[in-house]
Amino acid sequence: MSKTVIQHVLSRLKELGIKDIFGVAGDYAFPIEDAVCADKDMRWVGSCNELNAAYSADGYARIHGMAALSTTYGVGELSAINGTAGSYAEFLPVFHLVGMPASGVQTARRLVHHTLGNGEFEIFYDMVEPVVCARAIMTPENCVAETERLISAALQMRRPVYMGFPSDYANMPVTGTVEPAPDHPPRPATDPVALNAAVAAIVDALLPSKTACIVPGILVSRAGLADHALAIVNASNLPFTTMFMDKCVLDESHPNYIGMYDGKLMNEQVRVFVEGCDCVIGIGAMLTDFNSGSFTAQIDRSKSMNIMLDTVRVGNASYNNVRMEDVLTELARRIPRKEVSAPPVQGLGAPVGKLEGPVTADYLYPRWQQMLRPNDIVIAETGTASMGLGFAHMPKGATFQNQTLWGAIGWATPAAFGAAIAAPHRRTILITGEGSHQLSAQEVSQFHRFGLKPIIFVLNNDGYLIERLLCKDPESYYNDLAKWNYSKLPEALGCDGWFTARVTTCAELDQAIAAAESCGTGAYIEVIAGRYEASPLSMKLHESVDTLYSA
Amino acid sequence: MSKTVIQHVLSRLKELGIKDIFGVAGDYAFPIEDAVCADKDMRWVGSCNELNAAYSADGYARIHGMAALSTTYGVGELSAINGTAGSYAEFLPVFHLVGMPASGVQTARRLVHHTLGNGEFEIFYDMVEPVVCARAIMTPENCVAETERLISAALQMRRPVYMGFPSDYANMPVTGTVEPAPDHPPRPATDPVALNAAVAAIVDALLPSKTACIVPGILVSRAGLADHALAIVNASNLPFTTMFMDKCVLDESHPNYIGMYDGKLMNEQVRVFVEGCDCVIGIGAMLTDFNSGSFTAQIDRSKSMNIMLDTVRVGNASYNNVRMEDVLTELARRIPRKEVSAPPVQGLGAPVGKLEGPVTADYLYPRWQQMLRPNDIVIAETGTASMGLGFAHMPKGATFQNQTLWGAIGWATPAAFGAAIAAPHRRTILITGEGSHQLSAQEVSQFHRFGLKPIIFVLNNDGYLIERLLCKDPESYYNDLAKWNYSKLPEALGCDGWFTARVTTCAELDQAIAAAESCGTGAYIEVIAGRYEASPLSMKLHESVDTLYSA
Repeated sequence: MSKTVIQHVLSRLKELGIKDIFGVAGDYAFPIEDAVCADKDMRWVGSCNELNAAYSADGYARIHGMAALSTTYGVGELSAINGTAGSYAEFLPVFHLVGMPASGVQTARRLVHHTLGNGEFEIFYDMVEPVVCARAIMTPENCVAETERLISAALQMRRPVYMGFPSDYANMPVTGTVEPAPDHPPRPATDPVALNAAVAAIVDALLPSKTACIVPGILVSRAGLADHALAIVNASNLPFTTMFMDKCVLDESHPNYIGMYDGKLMNEQVRVFVEGCDCVIGIGAMLTDFNSGSFTAQIDRSKSMNIMLDTVRVGNASYNNVRMEDVLTELARRIPRKEVSAPPVQGLGAPVGKLEGPVTADYLYPRWQQMLRPNDIVIAETGTASMGLGFAHMPKGATFQNQTLWGAIGWATPAAFGAAIAAPHRRTILITGEGSHQLSAQEVSQFHRFGLKPIIFVLNNDGYLIERLLCKDPESYYNDLAKWNYSKLPEALGCDGWFTARVTTCAELDQAIAAAESCGTGAYIEVIAGRYEASPLSMKLHESVDTLYSA
Repeated sequence: MSKTVIQHVLSRLKELGIKDIFGVAGDYAFPIEDAVCADKDMRWVGSCNELNAAYSADGYARIHGMAALSTTYGVGELSAINGTAGSYAEFLPVFHLVGMPASGVQTARRLVHHTLGNGEFEIFYDMVEPVVCARAIMTPENCVAETERLISAALQMRRPVYMGFPSDYANMPVTGTVEPAPDHPPRPATDPVALNAAVAAIVDALLPSKTACIVPGILVSRAGLADHALAIVNASNLPFTTMFMDKCVLDESHPNYIGMYDGKLMNEQVRVFVEGCDCVIGIGAMLTDFNSGSFTAQIDRSKSMNIMLDTVRVGNASYNNVRMEDVLTELARRIPRKEVSAPPVQGLGAPVGKLEGPVTADYLYPRWQQMLRPNDIVIAETGTASMGLGFAHMPKGATFQNQTLWGAIGWATPAAFGAAIAAPHRRTILITGEGSHQLSAQEVSQFHRFGLKPIIFVLNNDGYLIERLLCKDPESYYNDLAKWNYSKLPEALGCDGWFTARVTTCAELDQAIAAAESCGTGAYIEVIAGRYEASPLSMKLHESVDTLYSA
């Protein structure tokens, strides 16, 4: 018997390895939700709201490579759209399955709920267009072909796609072929001539250099090519550095890692080395504001190159139609081995401070670094806390996730949940400021519901500290927040038995971390810090506001 | 000295009576937030997240007539967009002030945070287009003219408008005239010939009728013309009924009110009367799905008429360019007085049930009705709870707000906060199911922060009950939720001293209501009810799913 439209799509997602669907149930999407729940190999992960679901899908995709999200029409999809935009900006393939009113309801232009009351049904489908790389309204006729087209687009471009399902069509059998599609949809082939020229140009630039380094970027991770990039490092023996958005793209325990490069703002020894190199090989890195130390990173274009998803730039020359995977494979064969003297990696060092004194930045960030273990997943919210921990030296296999470009506060709490769903046997550590946490705090309840045991730190500075540091008058009352009793939240949210604490001194922080690591349950620790107790990078941004905001 | 761009806009909003700006602070919007906080006559109302801020602005506009919202670029505005869409669908003028990167940053296409990383800056401005009635990017040159255009559009069409402020432009002095603009921007004039013809047609249809009634709708309220519609009722002495979305558009304590009309689903005596009338005069009512008893309302088009914002339909004839205000004014002078026998209004009656027994629908909804007082503001979330209380007979001056067309769950909690900010001296009662509450529960903290004392009921049926009633298998696990300890939420959210309760019997409900009414603080009551303890209308919808979803 033929599969239905929704069954076909779900079966293809399963073949890609997606078995969890984040979302909020809604009536027009019943056929999607029914099909997910009827499939014993899939799991419906019901989120508290749609934006949180989208953030969770984003977090899941960061760990698992791709993700799926389902919402209802209008109200659901628009609530999620900011999460989708973030996944678009940060190159995460998320399949967004939207339940729509039945085709006949649309044709008759009925005045049904979740519409604007004007009989128009493609409005929301059009609104999403700029933040997905491909979209389709699925029908029995187009289902097989459109599914392949959307999968191909999502996987090649590493961006979200949108699939709308009119509720009647969703449950109809697909027409046309339902032959199993190839596991990996065909990709546009690399142009071998351009490939040869690009790799030759890179090698030619590198050969005469006395000092050189590699700057692997976020696209390496997004394209699943960390092993390929690592092969370049190992073959060339070149030192490598990463920028903020790109942290942990390659393992920081590698002996060639020299630490974070953040322009003139941080790690001066790394800046001097990188900017003094004769040859800088970027691999999928982007010079955005927060990835370039507020545009203070100054790498001479003529001495640098960048290998992107489908293009290579060497100096001022571009080579098109060359896929990153092929470039890295070929380059690993041809890259010369070098001996370059580079500065050693510096982490955050040991915690400094009085145990009985208040929690200071000098104590907190090194202490957090100290607790990290191999394979930890660290999800760090935009704000001063991530700007502190971002300069930790991470253990082997550990990952550090931050939404550096899109920077939607509220992202981290649900993203940590999504990451934990993707890797339940790894330790998930969420680091968030309390202001950002307020946007999406209810999602803490989902960890417990799904049997996950995160360690959550909520850094409470009594307001939006990063904004106090960037605005005209730090005490402007728009930076104030409702005052919550954060450490009582897990109980209210049903996280029975969790370890919770509210710490005000370094000794209490130490005790709470020890308890969290041994309690065998989820842990939620509110860290009280001074109103202006900011991480070093956030203080540097404070001092360089002008370069951050001007053209 | 000239006002700056943002000062000019804020001064015009103040002249319209808007003094509260809901929003979440963000760096590109600092100039907006700085200007609000610097103005002693304005107040920045910082919400927990942007969607909640938009819902709060929506609730404020329902009580105050219009509202303002401010968010930052990209992440903020997209997070709010679903709330804006709801205000669009339900005719609420909300001014959305968005802080954008500086003009030079945009021109230089810099890769800054809160962008998609592609150097394009008008993407989000274009995405919002379908859910606002007008929009502009404000500059020193266009500021005065565009402000008047947007105000005019918002007030005439009763829809949201979007104002983008590049951060440098926001703080520049306006050029061109800054003369005080007229209090009420000019409206397109009514065509007097069409007006006369329309009113004559209404009167001609009404004169020979033996039975007739009036159906005032939501647009009466949105246009601020309740007094005008009331004059029609009083002049004609006709009975009136309202549909669900339109509840309390005219005062339900009026002797001519006959109760709610909901097609074949509820109040059969009202249906028989209305559908038997020779002449039905609609005033700004819309026959959407939930406003028509799942399309079971059957009013003969040839016997009905509808007075809309700018048009009048009488039978099959349309009259254009006639503003509702003018039509109602003229009609009040010319409408004949009638004596029509109509059924008396029926409310929900007295609570029925055993005091020591579980809370049943037969007890709960009449009990809620019983507690209502004159001038109460009831904000009722989409779901079975609002479908129960919607048939209460409301006291004088009380209002019942529900998002009947857009139907975004999660709306009610922040909307109640917005309503309470608009009318701090009236009693605000929030009625929500627990599933919907989870979407936006953090906004409870804002009531306490702003010194407001709502009575909040969270009806806990252990899942999305309305969805259990509408989907294929009610026990599908997508209708389940994380289990919270709701009554502990206010404490965790910092609502110190609030009365909280978790009630499982009718007697406990009575006691909790009595305590809430006398405690002098905010009150938060979790009502535990049976998993399938549904209001009558929601049971009827369950039985008529086919007409709800088919064309």
